[in-house]
Amino acid sequence: MRAYLLGLQARIMDALDAIEAEAACAGQKGAKSIIDPWSKAPGELLQGDGITRIIEGGQVFERAGCGFSHVRGPRLPPSATQHRPELAGAPFEAMGVSLVFHPRNPYVPTVHMNVRMIAARPPDQGPGAPAHCWFGGGMDLTPYYGFLEDVQHFHRCCRDALQPFGADKYPRFKQWCDEYFFLKHRSEQRGVGGVFYDDFSELGFEQSLAMTQSVGDAFLKAYLPIVEKRQATPFGERERDFQIYRRGRYVEFNLVWDRGTHFGLQSGGRTESILLSMPPLVAWAYQRADAVDSPEAELTQRFLVRRDWLSEVG
Amino acid sequence: MRAYLLGLQARIMDALDAIEAEAACAGQKGAKSIIDPWSKAPGELLQGDGITRIIEGGQVFERAGCGFSHVRGPRLPPSATQHRPELAGAPFEAMGVSLVFHPRNPYVPTVHMNVRMIAARPPDQGPGAPAHCWFGGGMDLTPYYGFLEDVQHFHRCCRDALQPFGADKYPRFKQWCDEYFFLKHRSEQRGVGGVFYDDFSELGFEQSLAMTQSVGDAFLKAYLPIVEKRQATPFGERERDFQIYRRGRYVEFNLVWDRGTHFGLQSGGRTESILLSMPPLVAWAYQRADAVDSPEAELTQRFLVRRDWLSEVG
Repeated sequence: MRAYLLGLQARIMDALDAIEAEAACAGQKGAKSIIDPWSKAPGELLQGDGITRIIEGGQVFERAGCGFSHVRGPRLPPSATQHRPELAGAPFEAMGVSLVFHPRNPYVPTVHMNVRMIAARPPDQGPGAPAHCWFGGGMDLTPYYGFLEDVQHFHRCCRDALQPFGADKYPRFKQWCDEYFFLKHRSEQRGVGGVFYDDFSELGFEQSLAMTQSVGDAFLKAYLPIVEKRQATPFGERERDFQIYRRGRYVEFNLVWDRGTHFGLQSGGRTESILLSMPPLVAWAYQRADAVDSPEAELTQRFLVRRDWLSEVG
Repeated sequence: MRAYLLGLQARIMDALDAIEAEAACAGQKGAKSIIDPWSKAPGELLQGDGITRIIEGGQVFERAGCGFSHVRGPRLPPSATQHRPELAGAPFEAMGVSLVFHPRNPYVPTVHMNVRMIAARPPDQGPGAPAHCWFGGGMDLTPYYGFLEDVQHFHRCCRDALQPFGADKYPRFKQWCDEYFFLKHRSEQRGVGGVFYDDFSELGFEQSLAMTQSVGDAFLKAYLPIVEKRQATPFGERERDFQIYRRGRYVEFNLVWDRGTHFGLQSGGRTESILLSMPPLVAWAYQRADAVDSPEAELTQRFLVRRDWLSEVG
């Protein structure tokens, strides 16, 4: 899994670097692309290492971060053992790749993807006891201007990635995604969804791992065609203002509701890697109201709601 | 108390409107100043009303919000009764004024002030039983470029406001403020502090109320002289970039650590009023590093640390 995750991170970020290289024009300031390997100092509660990759100031991606991390800890946190009381306090190992890309053009949606595995050994059995492993993952899309065909393409890729593992997976994980990426304080979806799952081991180790890798592998085909299609769409101050305003919702979700972000920041995780998800530039304004029937109002009315995207005809 | 709070909000925001009127130049886009009274719809869990006042897009204040609210609820939330088990589940009433001002000029610090009162009647006694009342409040300053004389002026005003209520109050509440406004995930103070207190009733109702009003009354003298002194300081892109980057810390504190914000958003409070505290424009960047001995590095090294400001000689 570690080798798979490192390869996935490299594939994805190399693809973004290539897009930036192609988009860079002579005389323009190029993107800053950082590859930052880190490891936890001996003596810290969590041990482990990771690689943070991030593009900032690109022509296509204003801020695009992708983190790999692999940590070991002496005791599973209580939040991880609610459904597994037999593992309370067990030593554990966790690894994953997580990314959030904030494009510059407001017609290109923001995207999030994460795949992860946790392994724990029941504390009351010897070191030879088999470890319990479970998986989590998913990806979801957050447009500023909605295009039904983009949403359908993204969801179709999610469905196709899960199809070999049972026809129930996409509808279950699509619903789970809608329920998870919801701003309760706004009664609003974060975006148009995708798929999300957690605590997953029901297919056994091999197949649960394969399913998670299938989700990771589907990411570039789900997202890049949308980037290619929309990145050259002309936009002005109006679209830019709306984008940086809407990015505030992303910040609100991640800092107030996202369990991973919240837990990471409160438990001594690596702050700059956790906050890769923050947008490069964000605005707040009091009770912004968009004209009825404007594309801006359409976003919340027609796209940031729970819909069965794949059964709809555009 | 209600009349006092409404008057305090009016005094403070009228003062800001006057500053904006004076700063507005012919031909420039003026500040938008909103006075927005609201009330909770019948049938909602919390009942009550409030007035939200906010200036956006001003010459001096880029976003400056001040909310008055007065709500009644059927049951005190558990977070409010940790130290008062006899009041668990009691019907309550809460009122307060809370403000955060984000100036445009990076040499003018951001400021926060809050004064509040909660009253609850023990549920097992009749409606004629006396209510328990307690108070909270404080103010704190968050500069982008540090000036010792400004910090000392602000702290001196806090101390003077509390002096009539006992010499112990300023040192206790100054320390409480340092402990509360701390970003644990960055090991960094939010700003240079001020005073903060909560659950306060030890002086009895009359004197505790008087102390809280004294804190509210001290706000304009603590903050406006700093605005007047710094608002015309010339600044460029460098200072502006630093300011919008540092504002990210304000967002992180308020959305991740601030109990009031977090509780309000999660329990169905009025989102747009709670998020008055959000800055108008914010940036995140990966591991920003400022040159040693730069004024930007000086902020974190010399100002965002716990210091006994009033005993120091500039």
